Amino acid sequence: MATGDVKLLGAGASPYVNRVQIALNIKSENYEFLEEKLGSKSELLLKSNPIHKKIPVLIHDDKPICESLVIVQYIDDVWTSGPSILPSDPYDRAIARFWAAYVDDKWFPLMKELRMAEGEEAKAAAIEKIVEVLVVLEEAFVKCSKGKAFFGGDSIGFLDIAFGSFLGWLKVTEKMGEMRLLSEAKTPNLVEWAERFCCDDAVKDVLPKTEKLIEIFKIMQARAKAPPSN
Amino acid sequence: MATGDVKLLGAGASPYVNRVQIALNIKSENYEFLEEKLGSKSELLLKSNPIHKKIPVLIHDDKPICESLVIVQYIDDVWTSGPSILPSDPYDRAIARFWAAYVDDKWFPLMKELRMAEGEEAKAAAIEKIVEVLVVLEEAFVKCSKGKAFFGGDSIGFLDIAFGSFLGWLKVTEKMGEMRLLSEAKTPNLVEWAERFCCDDAVKDVLPKTEKLIEIFKIMQARAKAPPSN
Repeated sequence: MATGDVKLLGAGASPYVNRVQIALNIKSENYEFLEEKLGSKSELLLKSNPIHKKIPVLIHDDKPICESLVIVQYIDDVWTSGPSILPSDPYDRAIARFWAAYVDDKWFPLMKELRMAEGEEAKAAAIEKIVEVLVVLEEAFVKCSKGKAFFGGDSIGFLDIAFGSFLGWLKVTEKMGEMRLLSEAKTPNLVEWAERFCCDDAVKDVLPKTEKLIEIFKIMQARAKAPPSN
Repeated sequence: MATGDVKLLGAGASPYVNRVQIALNIKSENYEFLEEKLGSKSELLLKSNPIHKKIPVLIHDDKPICESLVIVQYIDDVWTSGPSILPSDPYDRAIARFWAAYVDDKWFPLMKELRMAEGEEAKAAAIEKIVEVLVVLEEAFVKCSKGKAFFGGDSIGFLDIAFGSFLGWLKVTEKMGEMRLLSEAKTPNLVEWAERFCCDDAVKDVLPKTEKLIEIFKIMQARAKAPPSN
Protein backbone atom coordinates (compact mmCIF):
# COMPACT_ATOMS: atom_id res chain seq x y z
CA MET A 1 0.00 0.00 0.00
CA ALA A 2 1.90 3.03 -1.24
CA THR A 3 -0.09 6.02 -0.13
CA GLY A 4 -0.17 9.71 -0.81
CA ASP A 5 2.37 12.43 -0.95
CA VAL A 6 5.56 11.87 1.04
CA LYS A 7 8.13 14.55 1.82
CA LEU A 8 11.13 14.33 4.10
CA LEU A 9 12.65 17.43 5.66
CA GLY A 10 16.24 16.61 6.47
CA ALA A 11 19.96 16.73 5.83
CA GLY A 12 21.98 13.83 4.46
CA ALA A 13 24.61 14.05 7.21
CA SER A 14 22.12 13.53 10.06
CA PRO A 15 21.93 9.96 11.39
CA TYR A 16 18.40 10.68 12.59
CA VAL A 17 17.38 11.64 9.06
CA ASN A 18 19.20 8.57 7.69
CA ARG A 19 16.95 6.38 9.87
CA VAL A 20 13.88 7.66 8.06
CA GLN A 21 15.52 7.33 4.63
CA ILE A 22 16.43 3.70 5.36
CA ALA A 23 12.91 2.91 6.59
CA LEU A 24 11.36 4.43 3.46
CA ASN A 25 13.82 2.46 1.28
CA ILE A 26 12.87 -0.78 3.04
CA LYS A 27 9.26 -0.04 2.11
CA SER A 28 10.32 0.94 -1.47
CA GLU A 29 8.51 4.23 -0.98
CA ASN A 30 9.38 7.21 -3.16
CA TYR A 31 9.62 10.56 -1.44
CA GLU A 32 10.68 14.11 -2.02
CA PHE A 33 13.77 15.05 -0.02
CA LEU A 34 13.70 18.68 1.11
CA GLU A 35 17.24 19.54 2.21
CA GLU A 36 17.63 21.77 5.25
CA LYS A 37 20.81 23.85 5.01
CA LEU A 38 23.41 23.50 7.75
CA GLY A 39 22.89 26.16 10.41
CA SER A 40 19.53 27.46 9.24
CA LYS A 41 15.92 26.39 9.69
CA SER A 42 13.36 26.74 6.92
CA GLU A 43 9.88 28.19 7.43
CA LEU A 44 8.46 24.76 6.61
CA LEU A 45 10.58 23.14 9.35
CA LEU A 46 9.54 25.72 11.97
CA LYS A 47 5.90 25.25 11.00
CA SER A 48 6.10 21.44 10.87
CA ASN A 49 8.01 20.88 14.10
CA PRO A 50 7.31 23.95 16.27
CA ILE A 51 8.14 22.08 19.48
CA HIS A 52 11.69 20.88 18.76
CA LYS A 53 12.43 22.75 15.49
CA LYS A 54 14.57 19.79 14.43
CA ILE A 55 14.96 17.45 11.50
CA PRO A 56 13.84 14.89 10.48
CA VAL A 57 10.21 15.67 9.79
CA LEU A 58 8.18 13.36 7.58
CA ILE A 59 5.29 15.13 5.89
CA HIS A 60 2.71 12.59 4.75
CA ASP A 61 -0.30 14.03 2.94
CA ASP A 62 0.44 17.41 4.56
CA LYS A 63 0.56 15.91 8.07
CA PRO A 64 3.93 16.29 9.84
CA ILE A 65 5.44 13.53 11.97
CA CYS A 66 8.53 14.31 14.09
CA GLU A 67 11.19 12.38 16.05
CA SER A 68 13.12 9.77 14.07
CA LEU A 69 12.07 6.60 15.91
CA VAL A 70 8.44 7.75 16.04
CA ILE A 71 8.63 8.29 12.26
CA VAL A 72 10.16 4.84 11.63
CA GLN A 73 7.33 3.22 13.61
CA TYR A 74 4.79 5.31 11.69
CA ILE A 75 6.28 4.17 8.37
CA ASP A 76 6.04 0.56 9.52
CA ASP A 77 2.41 1.11 10.57
CA VAL A 78 1.35 2.77 7.30
CA TRP A 79 3.25 0.89 4.59
CA THR A 80 2.22 -2.55 5.76
CA SER A 81 2.73 -4.30 2.44
CA GLY A 82 6.54 -3.86 2.52
CA PRO A 83 8.89 -5.89 4.76
CA SER A 84 8.20 -5.39 8.47
CA ILE A 85 10.59 -3.16 10.39
CA LEU A 86 9.42 -3.92 13.94
CA PRO A 87 9.46 -7.62 14.93
CA SER A 88 6.02 -9.27 14.77
CA ASP A 89 6.34 -10.94 18.19
CA PRO A 90 5.36 -8.54 21.03
CA TYR A 91 8.29 -9.58 23.25
CA ASP A 92 10.85 -9.19 20.45
CA ARG A 93 9.23 -5.83 19.65
CA ALA A 94 9.63 -4.71 23.27
CA ILE A 95 13.28 -5.80 23.27
CA ALA A 96 13.96 -3.90 20.02
CA ARG A 97 12.34 -0.76 21.51
CA PHE A 98 14.34 -1.16 24.72
CA TRP A 99 17.67 -1.30 22.90
CA ALA A 100 16.76 1.50 20.48
CA ALA A 101 16.07 3.72 23.51
CA TYR A 102 19.42 2.60 24.98
CA VAL A 103 21.19 3.66 21.78
CA ASP A 104 19.50 7.06 21.84
CA ASP A 105 20.15 7.64 25.54
CA LYS A 106 23.78 6.52 25.47
CA TRP A 107 25.26 7.17 22.07
CA PHE A 108 24.83 10.86 21.42
CA PRO A 109 25.91 12.00 24.95
CA LEU A 110 29.05 9.83 24.74
CA MET A 111 29.97 11.08 21.29
CA LYS A 112 29.54 14.63 22.59
CA GLU A 113 31.66 13.81 25.65
CA LEU A 114 34.44 12.54 23.38
CA ARG A 115 34.23 15.60 21.13
CA MET A 116 34.41 17.99 24.10
CA ALA A 117 37.13 16.03 25.94
CA GLU A 118 40.25 18.09 26.56
CA GLY A 119 43.55 16.31 27.17
CA GLU A 120 44.55 12.72 26.63
CA GLU A 121 43.16 11.47 29.93
CA ALA A 122 39.65 12.81 29.34
CA LYS A 123 39.71 11.45 25.78
CA ALA A 124 40.82 8.00 26.94
CA ALA A 125 38.04 7.97 29.56
CA ALA A 126 35.40 8.87 26.94
CA ILE A 127 36.69 6.20 24.56
CA GLU A 128 36.59 3.61 27.32
CA LYS A 129 32.92 4.43 27.98
CA ILE A 130 32.09 4.18 24.27
CA VAL A 131 33.76 0.79 24.01
CA GLU A 132 31.85 -0.36 27.11
CA VAL A 133 28.58 0.58 25.41
CA LEU A 134 29.66 -1.21 22.22
CA VAL A 135 30.44 -4.36 24.23
CA VAL A 136 26.93 -4.19 25.73
CA LEU A 137 25.49 -3.83 22.22
CA GLU A 138 27.65 -6.76 21.04
CA GLU A 139 25.95 -8.92 23.68
CA ALA A 140 22.56 -7.54 22.66
CA PHE A 141 23.33 -8.45 19.05
CA VAL A 142 24.10 -12.06 19.97
CA LYS A 143 20.78 -12.32 21.85
CA CYS A 144 18.57 -10.43 19.38
CA SER A 145 19.94 -11.81 16.10
CA LYS A 146 19.77 -15.45 17.25
CA GLY A 147 22.62 -16.35 14.88
CA LYS A 148 21.19 -14.42 11.93
CA ALA A 149 22.66 -11.49 9.99
CA PHE A 150 20.94 -8.56 11.70
CA PHE A 151 19.51 -7.50 15.06
CA GLY A 152 16.15 -7.92 13.32
CA GLY A 153 16.94 -11.43 12.00
CA ASP A 154 17.42 -12.14 8.29
CA SER A 155 16.83 -8.55 7.28
CA ILE A 156 17.31 -5.05 8.69
CA GLY A 157 14.87 -4.16 11.46
CA PHE A 158 14.10 -1.38 13.95
CA LEU A 159 17.22 -1.76 16.09
CA ASP A 160 19.50 -2.14 13.06
CA ILE A 161 18.17 1.20 11.82
CA ALA A 162 18.40 2.87 15.25
CA PHE A 163 22.04 1.88 15.83
CA GLY A 164 23.28 1.49 12.26
CA SER A 165 22.43 5.09 11.43
CA PHE A 166 25.36 6.13 13.64
CA LEU A 167 27.95 4.04 11.79
CA GLY A 168 28.93 6.91 9.46
CA TRP A 169 29.86 9.18 12.37
CA LEU A 170 31.47 6.27 14.23
CA LYS A 171 33.84 5.85 11.26
CA VAL A 172 34.57 9.60 11.32
CA THR A 173 35.46 9.36 15.00
CA GLU A 174 37.71 6.38 14.33
CA LYS A 175 39.45 8.03 11.39
CA MET A 176 39.99 11.44 12.99
CA GLY A 177 41.15 9.92 16.28
CA GLU A 178 43.28 7.26 14.54
CA MET A 179 41.74 4.53 16.67
CA ARG A 180 39.32 1.62 16.50
CA LEU A 181 36.06 1.63 18.43
CA LEU A 182 34.55 -1.48 16.84
CA SER A 183 37.17 -4.24 16.94
CA GLU A 184 37.65 -7.94 16.25
CA ALA A 185 38.88 -8.35 19.82
CA LYS A 186 35.92 -6.87 21.70
CA THR A 187 33.02 -6.64 19.26
CA PRO A 188 33.60 -9.24 16.51
CA ASN A 189 29.90 -9.70 15.72
CA LEU A 190 29.29 -5.96 15.44
CA VAL A 191 32.25 -5.59 13.07
CA GLU A 192 30.65 -8.07 10.67
CA TRP A 193 27.16 -6.67 11.23
CA ALA A 194 28.36 -3.12 10.44
CA GLU A 195 29.79 -4.29 7.11
CA ARG A 196 26.58 -6.09 6.19
CA PHE A 197 24.47 -3.14 7.27
CA CYS A 198 26.40 -0.56 5.25
CA CYS A 199 26.25 -2.75 2.09
CA ASP A 200 22.51 -3.37 2.34
CA ASP A 201 20.40 -2.13 -0.57
CA ALA A 202 18.25 0.04 1.71
CA VAL A 203 21.31 1.63 3.31
CA LYS A 204 24.23 1.90 0.88
CA ASP A 205 23.13 5.10 -0.86
CA VAL A 206 21.91 6.68 2.38
CA LEU A 207 24.85 6.68 4.79
CA PRO A 208 27.25 9.46 3.76
CA LYS A 209 30.87 8.68 2.88
CA THR A 210 33.38 9.21 5.70
CA GLU A 211 35.28 11.92 3.77
CA LYS A 212 32.07 13.88 3.21
CA LEU A 213 31.21 13.71 6.92
CA ILE A 214 34.72 14.83 7.90
CA GLU A 215 34.28 17.88 5.65
CA ILE A 216 30.95 18.68 7.36
CA PHE A 217 32.47 18.08 10.79
CA LYS A 218 35.23 20.61 10.05
CA ILE A 219 32.71 23.23 8.91
CA MET A 220 30.66 22.67 12.10
CA GLN A 221 33.78 22.93 14.26
CA ALA A 222 34.89 26.16 12.55
CA ARG A 223 31.43 27.67 13.06
CA ALA A 224 31.38 26.68 16.73
CA LYS A 225 34.73 28.46 17.24
CA ALA A 226 33.83 31.59 15.24
CA PRO A 227 32.66 34.66 17.19
CA PRO A 228 28.88 35.06 17.06
CA SER A 229 27.62 37.33 14.28
CA ASN A 230 24.48 39.44 14.10
CA MET B 1 -6.70 -12.95 26.07
CA ALA B 2 -5.31 -13.10 29.59
CA THR B 3 -2.07 -14.97 29.38
CA GLY B 4 0.37 -16.54 31.77
CA ASP B 5 2.09 -15.44 34.91
CA VAL B 6 2.46 -11.69 35.43
CA LYS B 7 4.72 -10.08 38.03
CA LEU B 8 5.56 -6.42 38.43
CA LEU B 9 8.74 -5.34 40.17
CA GLY B 10 8.15 -1.84 41.47
CA ALA B 11 7.39 0.67 44.18
CA GLY B 12 4.06 2.38 44.61
CA ALA B 13 5.58 5.86 44.77
CA SER B 14 7.22 5.65 41.33
CA PRO B 15 5.27 7.31 38.52
CA TYR B 16 7.02 5.00 36.07
CA VAL B 17 5.72 1.98 37.98
CA ASN B 18 2.26 3.59 38.20
CA ARG B 19 2.17 3.69 34.38
CA VAL B 20 2.44 -0.08 34.23
CA GLN B 21 -0.12 -0.58 37.00
CA ILE B 22 -2.63 1.64 35.17
CA ALA B 23 -2.05 -0.20 31.87
CA LEU B 24 -2.59 -3.58 33.55
CA ASN B 25 -5.76 -2.25 35.22
CA ILE B 26 -7.10 -1.04 31.86
CA LYS B 27 -6.64 -4.59 30.58
CA SER B 28 -8.20 -6.01 33.81
CA GLU B 29 -5.11 -8.15 34.20
CA ASN B 30 -4.23 -9.59 37.62
CA TYR B 31 -0.59 -9.48 38.60
CA GLU B 32 1.69 -10.05 41.53
CA PHE B 33 3.26 -6.82 42.81
CA LEU B 34 6.80 -7.38 44.09
CA GLU B 35 7.73 -4.28 46.11
CA GLU B 36 11.27 -3.01 45.83
CA LYS B 37 12.36 -1.29 49.04
CA LEU B 38 13.44 2.35 48.87
CA GLY B 39 17.20 2.58 48.51
CA SER B 40 17.91 -1.09 47.82
CA LYS B 41 17.79 -3.33 44.76
CA SER B 42 16.69 -6.95 44.96
CA GLU B 43 18.57 -9.81 43.33
CA LEU B 44 15.58 -10.31 41.06
CA LEU B 45 15.73 -6.68 39.93
CA LEU B 46 19.47 -6.84 39.19
CA LYS B 47 18.97 -10.08 37.26
CA SER B 48 15.88 -8.83 35.38
CA ASN B 49 17.20 -5.40 34.41
CA PRO B 50 21.00 -5.71 34.41
CA ILE B 51 21.42 -2.72 32.07
CA HIS B 52 19.61 0.01 34.00
CA LYS B 53 18.96 -1.77 37.34
CA LYS B 54 15.73 0.23 37.63
CA ILE B 55 12.07 -0.35 38.28
CA PRO B 56 9.58 -0.99 36.77
CA VAL B 57 10.21 -4.44 35.36
CA LEU B 58 7.30 -6.53 34.11
CA ILE B 59 8.01 -10.24 34.27
CA HIS B 60 5.65 -12.10 31.97
CA ASP B 61 6.04 -15.88 31.92
CA ASP B 62 9.58 -15.44 33.29
CA LYS B 63 10.56 -12.99 30.55
CA PRO B 64 11.51 -9.50 31.81
CA ILE B 65 10.48 -6.32 30.00
CA CYS B 66 11.99 -2.99 31.14
CA GLU B 67 11.35 0.74 30.61
CA SER B 68 7.86 1.97 31.48
CA LEU B 69 6.66 3.13 28.05
CA VAL B 70 8.09 0.01 26.39
CA ILE B 71 6.17 -2.07 28.94
CA VAL B 72 2.90 -0.17 28.37
CA GLN B 73 3.19 -0.79 24.61
CA TYR B 74 3.98 -4.47 25.30
CA ILE B 75 0.86 -4.77 27.48
CA ASP B 76 -1.23 -3.23 24.70
CA ASP B 77 0.30 -5.66 22.17
CA VAL B 78 -0.27 -8.77 24.31
CA TRP B 79 -3.64 -8.20 25.97
CA THR B 80 -5.48 -7.32 22.80
CA SER B 81 -8.95 -8.19 24.06
CA GLY B 82 -9.00 -5.31 26.59
CA PRO B 83 -9.53 -1.64 25.65
CA SER B 84 -6.78 -0.30 23.37
CA ILE B 85 -4.16 1.93 24.95
CA LEU B 86 -2.42 3.19 21.80
CA PRO B 87 -4.72 4.88 19.24
CA SER B 88 -5.67 2.63 16.33
CA ASP B 89 -4.91 5.25 13.66
CA PRO B 90 -1.17 5.31 12.74
CA TYR B 91 -1.00 9.11 12.70
CA ASP B 92 -2.71 9.47 16.09
CA ARG B 93 -0.38 6.74 17.39
CA ALA B 94 2.66 8.69 16.18
CA ILE B 95 1.35 11.87 17.82
CA ALA B 96 0.77 10.05 21.13
CA ARG B 97 4.32 8.63 21.01
CA PHE B 98 5.73 12.07 20.18
CA TRP B 99 4.08 13.71 23.20
CA ALA B 100 4.90 10.83 25.53
CA ALA B 101 8.58 11.27 24.59
CA TYR B 102 8.19 15.01 25.20
CA VAL B 103 6.83 14.34 28.70
CA ASP B 104 9.75 12.01 29.49
CA ASP B 105 12.38 14.35 28.08
CA LYS B 106 11.01 17.49 29.74
CA TRP B 107 9.25 16.58 32.94
CA PHE B 108 11.79 14.77 35.06
CA PRO B 109 14.70 17.18 34.32
CA LEU B 110 12.49 20.18 35.18
CA MET B 111 11.24 18.63 38.41
CA LYS B 112 14.87 17.93 39.32
CA GLU B 113 15.85 21.51 38.45
CA LEU B 114 13.12 22.83 40.75
CA ARG B 115 14.17 20.49 43.57
CA MET B 116 17.82 21.52 43.28
CA ALA B 117 17.09 25.24 42.81
CA GLU B 118 18.68 27.39 45.50
CA GLY B 119 17.29 30.83 46.22
CA GLU B 120 14.01 32.43 45.19
CA GLU B 121 15.24 33.53 41.77
CA ALA B 122 16.35 30.06 40.69
CA LYS B 123 13.10 28.58 42.02
CA ALA B 124 10.98 31.12 40.14
CA ALA B 125 12.91 30.40 36.93
CA ALA B 126 12.34 26.63 37.31
CA ILE B 127 8.62 27.15 38.00
CA GLU B 128 8.31 29.38 34.95
CA LYS B 129 9.79 26.62 32.76
CA ILE B 130 7.43 24.03 34.24
CA VAL B 131 4.41 26.22 33.56
CA GLU B 132 5.66 26.77 29.99
CA VAL B 133 5.75 23.00 29.48
CA LEU B 134 2.27 22.67 30.98
CA VAL B 135 0.95 25.33 28.59
CA VAL B 136 2.43 23.36 25.67
CA LEU B 137 0.74 20.21 27.00
CA GLU B 138 -2.54 22.13 27.39
CA GLU B 139 -2.38 22.92 23.66
CA ALA B 140 -1.51 19.29 22.91
CA PHE B 141 -4.54 18.21 24.95
CA VAL B 142 -6.88 20.41 22.91
CA LYS B 143 -5.52 18.93 19.67
CA CYS B 144 -5.28 15.27 20.75
CA SER B 145 -8.55 14.99 22.71
CA LYS B 146 -10.64 16.58 19.96
CA GLY B 147 -13.15 17.78 22.57
CA LYS B 148 -13.29 14.48 24.43
CA ALA B 149 -12.38 13.67 28.04
CA PHE B 150 -8.84 12.38 27.60
CA PHE B 151 -5.78 12.77 25.41
CA GLY B 152 -6.76 9.32 24.10
CA GLY B 153 -10.41 10.28 23.40
CA ASP B 154 -13.29 8.84 25.43
CA SER B 155 -11.03 6.75 27.62
CA ILE B 156 -7.51 6.82 29.02
CA GLY B 157 -4.80 6.16 26.43
CA PHE B 158 -1.03 6.07 26.05
CA LEU B 159 -0.39 9.79 26.54
CA ASP B 160 -2.83 10.03 29.46
CA ILE B 161 -0.82 7.30 31.18
CA ALA B 162 2.55 8.83 30.28
CA PHE B 163 1.69 12.28 31.64
CA GLY B 164 -0.98 11.42 34.21
CA SER B 165 1.44 9.22 36.15
CA PHE B 166 3.25 12.39 37.25
CA LEU B 167 0.17 14.04 38.74
CA GLY B 168 0.85 12.65 42.22
CA TRP B 169 4.29 14.27 42.38
CA LEU B 170 2.96 17.43 40.74
CA LYS B 171 0.53 17.79 43.65
CA VAL B 172 3.39 17.25 46.11
CA THR B 173 5.37 20.02 44.42
CA GLU B 174 2.35 22.33 44.56
CA LYS B 175 1.62 21.58 48.20
CA MET B 176 5.18 21.82 49.49
CA GLY B 177 5.89 24.97 47.48
CA GLU B 178 2.49 26.51 48.33
CA MET B 179 1.84 27.30 44.67
CA ARG B 180 -0.24 26.23 41.71
CA LEU B 181 1.37 24.72 38.62
CA LEU B 182 -1.84 23.64 36.90
CA SER B 183 -4.26 26.57 36.92
CA GLU B 184 -7.62 27.69 35.61
CA ALA B 185 -5.92 30.72 34.08
CA LYS B 186 -3.24 29.00 32.01
CA THR B 187 -4.21 25.33 31.75
CA PRO B 188 -7.99 25.08 32.25
CA ASN B 189 -8.37 21.90 30.17
CA LEU B 190 -5.55 20.13 32.01
CA VAL B 191 -7.08 21.03 35.40
CA GLU B 192 -10.30 19.23 34.42
CA TRP B 193 -8.43 16.39 32.72
CA ALA B 194 -6.30 15.80 35.85
CA GLU B 195 -9.42 15.46 37.99
CA ARG B 196 -11.00 13.02 35.56
CA PHE B 197 -7.78 11.05 35.26
CA CYS B 198 -7.25 10.67 39.01
CA CYS B 199 -10.87 9.49 39.52
CA ASP B 200 -10.75 6.90 36.75
CA ASP B 201 -11.30 3.28 37.80
CA ALA B 202 -7.95 2.20 36.35
CA VAL B 203 -6.09 4.96 38.20
CA LYS B 204 -7.75 5.84 41.52
CA ASP B 205 -6.17 3.04 43.59
CA VAL B 206 -2.80 3.37 41.86
CA LEU B 207 -1.70 6.99 42.28
CA PRO B 208 -0.46 7.45 45.86
CA LYS B 209 -2.04 10.04 48.16
CA THR B 210 -0.21 13.38 48.38
CA GLU B 211 0.51 12.98 52.13
CA LYS B 212 2.08 9.57 51.54
CA LEU B 213 4.31 10.98 48.80
CA ILE B 214 5.35 13.90 51.00
CA GLU B 215 6.43 11.39 53.67
CA ILE B 216 8.50 9.49 51.09
CA PHE B 217 9.94 12.73 49.76
CA LYS B 218 11.12 13.70 53.23
CA ILE B 219 12.79 10.31 53.75
CA MET B 220 14.55 10.61 50.39
CA GLN B 221 15.69 14.14 51.21
CA ALA B 222 17.03 13.09 54.62
CA ARG B 223 18.95 10.21 53.04
CA ALA B 224 20.41 12.47 50.35
CA LYS B 225 21.70 14.80 53.08
CA ALA B 226 23.04 12.06 55.38
CA PRO B 227 26.78 11.26 55.21
CA PRO B 228 27.43 8.08 53.20
CA SER B 229 27.61 4.93 55.30
CA ASN B 230 29.50 1.70 54.63
